[in-house]
Amino acid sequence: MPTFHESPRFPRGFSAASRNVGLKPQAKDLSLFVSEVDAAAAAIFTKNHFPGAPIILGRETITGGRLRGIVVNSKVSNVATGERGVENARRMAAAAATEIGSSADRILVSSTGVIGVPLPIDIIERGIVGMSAELSADPMVAAEGIMTTDSYPKALSCEVGGATITWVAKGSGMIEPNMATMLVYVFTDAAFEPATLDRMLRAAAHVSFNMLSVDGDTSTSDTCAILANGLAGAVDETAFLEALTAGSLRMTELLARDGEGATRLLRTTVRNAKDETEARRVAKSLVNSPLVKTMVHGADPNVGRLLMAVGKCFDCTIDPSKTDAWVNGYQVVAKGLRLDFDEPTVRAALGGDTVDLEVDLGVGSTPAATAFGCDLTKGYIEENAAYYSS
Amino acid sequence: MPTFHESPRFPRGFSAASRNVGLKPQAKDLSLFVSEVDAAAAAIFTKNHFPGAPIILGRETITGGRLRGIVVNSKVSNVATGERGVENARRMAAAAATEIGSSADRILVSSTGVIGVPLPIDIIERGIVGMSAELSADPMVAAEGIMTTDSYPKALSCEVGGATITWVAKGSGMIEPNMATMLVYVFTDAAFEPATLDRMLRAAAHVSFNMLSVDGDTSTSDTCAILANGLAGAVDETAFLEALTAGSLRMTELLARDGEGATRLLRTTVRNAKDETEARRVAKSLVNSPLVKTMVHGADPNVGRLLMAVGKCFDCTIDPSKTDAWVNGYQVVAKGLRLDFDEPTVRAALGGDTVDLEVDLGVGSTPAATAFGCDLTKGYIEENAAYYSS
Repeated sequence: MPTFHESPRFPRGFSAASRNVGLKPQAKDLSLFVSEVDAAAAAIFTKNHFPGAPIILGRETITGGRLRGIVVNSKVSNVATGERGVENARRMAAAAATEIGSSADRILVSSTGVIGVPLPIDIIERGIVGMSAELSADPMVAAEGIMTTDSYPKALSCEVGGATITWVAKGSGMIEPNMATMLVYVFTDAAFEPATLDRMLRAAAHVSFNMLSVDGDTSTSDTCAILANGLAGAVDETAFLEALTAGSLRMTELLARDGEGATRLLRTTVRNAKDETEARRVAKSLVNSPLVKTMVHGADPNVGRLLMAVGKCFDCTIDPSKTDAWVNGYQVVAKGLRLDFDEPTVRAALGGDTVDLEVDLGVGSTPAATAFGCDLTKGYIEENAAYYSS
Repeated sequence: MPTFHESPRFPRGFSAASRNVGLKPQAKDLSLFVSEVDAAAAAIFTKNHFPGAPIILGRETITGGRLRGIVVNSKVSNVATGERGVENARRMAAAAATEIGSSADRILVSSTGVIGVPLPIDIIERGIVGMSAELSADPMVAAEGIMTTDSYPKALSCEVGGATITWVAKGSGMIEPNMATMLVYVFTDAAFEPATLDRMLRAAAHVSFNMLSVDGDTSTSDTCAILANGLAGAVDETAFLEALTAGSLRMTELLARDGEGATRLLRTTVRNAKDETEARRVAKSLVNSPLVKTMVHGADPNVGRLLMAVGKCFDCTIDPSKTDAWVNGYQVVAKGLRLDFDEPTVRAALGGDTVDLEVDLGVGSTPAATAFGCDLTKGYIEENAAYYSS
């Protein structure tokens, strides 16, 4: 497990800036990430059938395997905007390329915010001018510019074999990525080929971002990209993948804990399923169940709901007589039967900052799968009943 | 479309009683439904892998195809209670049989309430004594005894070909039946064989109760049963199925509208999908999306979320360039693009008592599928953060 820096920093050759360009009234709404030299790159995007214009463009851009920069706006997601939306995404890439002295096919574009509203591209084109003079070595600066309903900016960094890895992300709602999360950018000065980066990114996302769910809703803008500019030279692949996975898990937990309205991190772990697919499906069923999420929110020891959420996985192999369950390590179900447990103990566990629900299905010997989420609160309702209007 | 009675009534030969026997502090908690003569019967039960003890017993009982009565308690669901739970369900059937002068294999048992708590069978055995002297022709009396978080008792009745059909149901939360809803009992004096009843019940439930979702959580106690005592003689099967379906749809809407915390009925209709399975899946994705449900709650015209919820049906055939969408008949999306619609019009539509979201996928010519649900509110959080403790 790598040690994460107390204050995150960028790898050699990376920097970023952010500004308010007028999309939001006052908060920062545009971020620009830059590498001094072309970086090898890989990315994974949402599988939603209505991908945003930046996703359509990004799939084209990433085929080149090289990036110099990333430009991201918040407030408007440029989704369901048709050909004009894709044209606006291209103009956004071109504006960033001009600003940093690169070409548009080396720029990854992301937009996050309301779906179905035209992107105010003129404001972005005007607003980006001069940002290259403001580039900072602090990733938090750019993390601030990509926030929507996040309650604080999110960045992490660690060292691995003489190189640095830095994650900058946003999360909050409309999050069940299935293959990436809303927006996660990973920067490193280690040297890897794009194909290797792609393989490692998919492996890390498989156990981290792909197991995150705030509300079961899959964004049309999900993007997870990695840039490796090689300035630190070669790094052992096994060590790098281990650090990449560890940091991605940590970022996943940060995103889950800051889910819209969330007050607790919820981790659901499923052991001894028939196979990995079923382990992941049951873990997701638990982490997504509104009744499990409200039980956790209220610290209400209504643990029969765990069985309900396991049992509604109709296509999975479940044997009630073999199912055990624990709350923060305290067993509450044995062989499908609710134990006569100590209620104050379970209440205290459910009322903690982090709630671990573990289920042993006892029908196979598959390694554990863990899903990451949060409780369901009135804050979620408040944020989402007037997201468009506020 | 049959005409429904203003005050529901039972078919000839059916009656019911309800009491507080001490499971709840004061509210009614035990209902008994009786037919004067043995009735042909069919039932469908939850597919949850952790069926309650009454479901395990009910599957055995219904193989006989004949019922004289139904006994239902609320407050405790007798789920995850093992062999002792099944034994308690058998004792409950026996107590009801003794009370009405029948045999235990002619009694359907249901329990609804908290999962994983032992059934206080002694209280039920004592409490049921004398209920046969209180039998009433008003189905509302028994509807009251099966309520949990329902805000009012639910019963319906109509005439078809000289016979009557009566529905008594409870709903509220942990509802995405997939094959039946929490508890729905249908009574008729028409004469049908059990196999015919079974076929008709499944056909009616397929488009009604099976398309209901309050929260995507599937109860361990879902039961939908029909009893036909034949006292009105033969009725045309087509006319009967039509009335059975119409009443089941109407009851589905009552259950959806009274979902936990709900303030509006939400209906999502999907037209021109590739096939019926995909039409149903997309309709369910819309009706279950927390972001669609909160948008409806807040009457927030954030209609891009409709595309998100359609687009996250990864396994369905979706063509963004062919997708249209309407809110209460007012078009908001054409060919995958958000229209420049009149916001006050959409706000008013979303703010109504009933919200119809319609999507035309344009990729096939399948008949429309409609799912039934409700908005997601702070009331849902309140009820479910302390369900066990309150």
